[in-house]
Amino acid sequence: MKIKEIGELGFIEWVRKNFKIPGKDVIVGIGDDTAVIKDKDGYLLVTKDLLIEDVHFKISFDPFLLGRKSMAVNISDIASMGGEPLYSFLGIGFPKELSWEWIEKFMLGMRDICDKYKVFLIGGDTCSSPKLFISVTLIGKTDKVVLRSSAREGDYIYVTGKLGDSGAGLYILLNNLKSEDSHYKYLIERHLNPTPRVEEGRFLKDIASSMIDLSDGLSIDLHNLCRESRVGALIYGDRIPISDELKKFCAEINEDPFRFALQGGEDYELLFTSSEGLERKIVESIPATLIGRIEKREKGIRILKGGKEENLLRSGWEHF
Amino acid sequence: MKIKEIGELGFIEWVRKNFKIPGKDVIVGIGDDTAVIKDKDGYLLVTKDLLIEDVHFKISFDPFLLGRKSMAVNISDIASMGGEPLYSFLGIGFPKELSWEWIEKFMLGMRDICDKYKVFLIGGDTCSSPKLFISVTLIGKTDKVVLRSSAREGDYIYVTGKLGDSGAGLYILLNNLKSEDSHYKYLIERHLNPTPRVEEGRFLKDIASSMIDLSDGLSIDLHNLCRESRVGALIYGDRIPISDELKKFCAEINEDPFRFALQGGEDYELLFTSSEGLERKIVESIPATLIGRIEKREKGIRILKGGKEENLLRSGWEHF
Repeated sequence: MKIKEIGELGFIEWVRKNFKIPGKDVIVGIGDDTAVIKDKDGYLLVTKDLLIEDVHFKISFDPFLLGRKSMAVNISDIASMGGEPLYSFLGIGFPKELSWEWIEKFMLGMRDICDKYKVFLIGGDTCSSPKLFISVTLIGKTDKVVLRSSAREGDYIYVTGKLGDSGAGLYILLNNLKSEDSHYKYLIERHLNPTPRVEEGRFLKDIASSMIDLSDGLSIDLHNLCRESRVGALIYGDRIPISDELKKFCAEINEDPFRFALQGGEDYELLFTSSEGLERKIVESIPATLIGRIEKREKGIRILKGGKEENLLRSGWEHF
Repeated sequence: MKIKEIGELGFIEWVRKNFKIPGKDVIVGIGDDTAVIKDKDGYLLVTKDLLIEDVHFKISFDPFLLGRKSMAVNISDIASMGGEPLYSFLGIGFPKELSWEWIEKFMLGMRDICDKYKVFLIGGDTCSSPKLFISVTLIGKTDKVVLRSSAREGDYIYVTGKLGDSGAGLYILLNNLKSEDSHYKYLIERHLNPTPRVEEGRFLKDIASSMIDLSDGLSIDLHNLCRESRVGALIYGDRIPISDELKKFCAEINEDPFRFALQGGEDYELLFTSSEGLERKIVESIPATLIGRIEKREKGIRILKGGKEENLLRSGWEHF
């Protein structure tokens, strides 16, 4: 049997079943993007992401933005728990023939976002590698943690920002579509230069009942949140926030922008839930849109769009 | 300019100069194998190591032992600070066509050492990759930390265990030397299945003045310890502990066992210093050998062997 037949989820499930379960200090362990460990101060948050050449990026991508993004995706994981990012560790395997200019730009991009979010790079490992390989570990802290497993029936569902821009940007890059139009540039920028929602996460730690960041697309991440919380959901499809740039691009390529909004990954917006009565406080404090409601688990995960209700399938990005 | 011209040390130096210096809570940051962060409980220790196919290992190596070793090298880093390893995070990129059987054995090896050292695997990331890529992050704790930068003139220098076995094991593997003799098996085993010295490190945290683990070989690691401590050293070459197996193997291939002991990496023994008067306590409590003495920086780093004194060059493993 090949690993691709087991898949990412099958692998995680195997680890969960076969490795010893940690003590009660570990609030969140295997299977989540961010581990949560209770300590005297509150909670220690630890996340780790891989970025591999020709899997997650091409060496032809802008190294400054790639360096920025390598850290941004980890900062987003900490943000999704309501945490404050603090210390990072960079594991990097360099092809021997890679130019120092490329690496310097990459590191300057990483420094740029570290400085912006007050993250310190304090360790790691370097070596040579046949392909460029990046592994960032980020440690954060919080006094109160928001999990993905605590959504309750009746809670409203929200997202920050707009959805689908990053997926469309990747589509442009992968299909090598050339255009000087500003909406092309905007969508590519949204893919390469995502904004982790740390400030919003810090605001939401005292307000949200559950939270996750959108790395795999709304469909998959909502399914993950609902599965962990043992609830169902109804999404008001027409309320999903979509940028004018994405609408314009989709009109040109004759594609439904909802496909990018639901299935395109890497928006790194926050998907969260909160109990009834806080709607005004939320939308007046942060750039968030109410897009649905948590229901009983038996109702499944559905989407209401143009007056019709249908099941929202779990689909989007899966590795292997 | 290529990255190989900058080198690993050049890269680390660049990062040290160009990234913001963290606050005083970070006792050890960039440039060390393990970062040390002061917290309310004592010290948080964080280490991260990369293992890359065709750089650090071949896919033909025993996957169980490789899984074990991927974690062992990190446990050794925590041990070298006097720490207790606690929580680990595995980033792993799998070639799509790799068999599940291989991965299962790898993971069982990792579980074996995790269980032995009471380390919990609580997170990470997986994805597909052109080559097998392994990145382990390990978090540990200690109430008292032993740094590599605090050796003092007059301290004695010690190592745990025997040196050079691992380097000889690697030599056998890389040169594809075939033998059923037990000393071949022993040396290969010492390379693939190193023993992190956690218990010894815990004992030494209250006794050692400085400590480092031997990953790059005695020459390089002693140079690193002396540079960070701003001291010189004299090594009593004839006292360097060498196993009978290594002596036998070296006699057969007509090689000096000191070459492996000084330059062969990956022994994962502890190199430490301690003030005069504790010699008996140390050698009666743990398997350690006194091999030298810390001197003034101006005296350099020298080795006395067969009555002759010479400079001990910094040489051994360097990446790129």
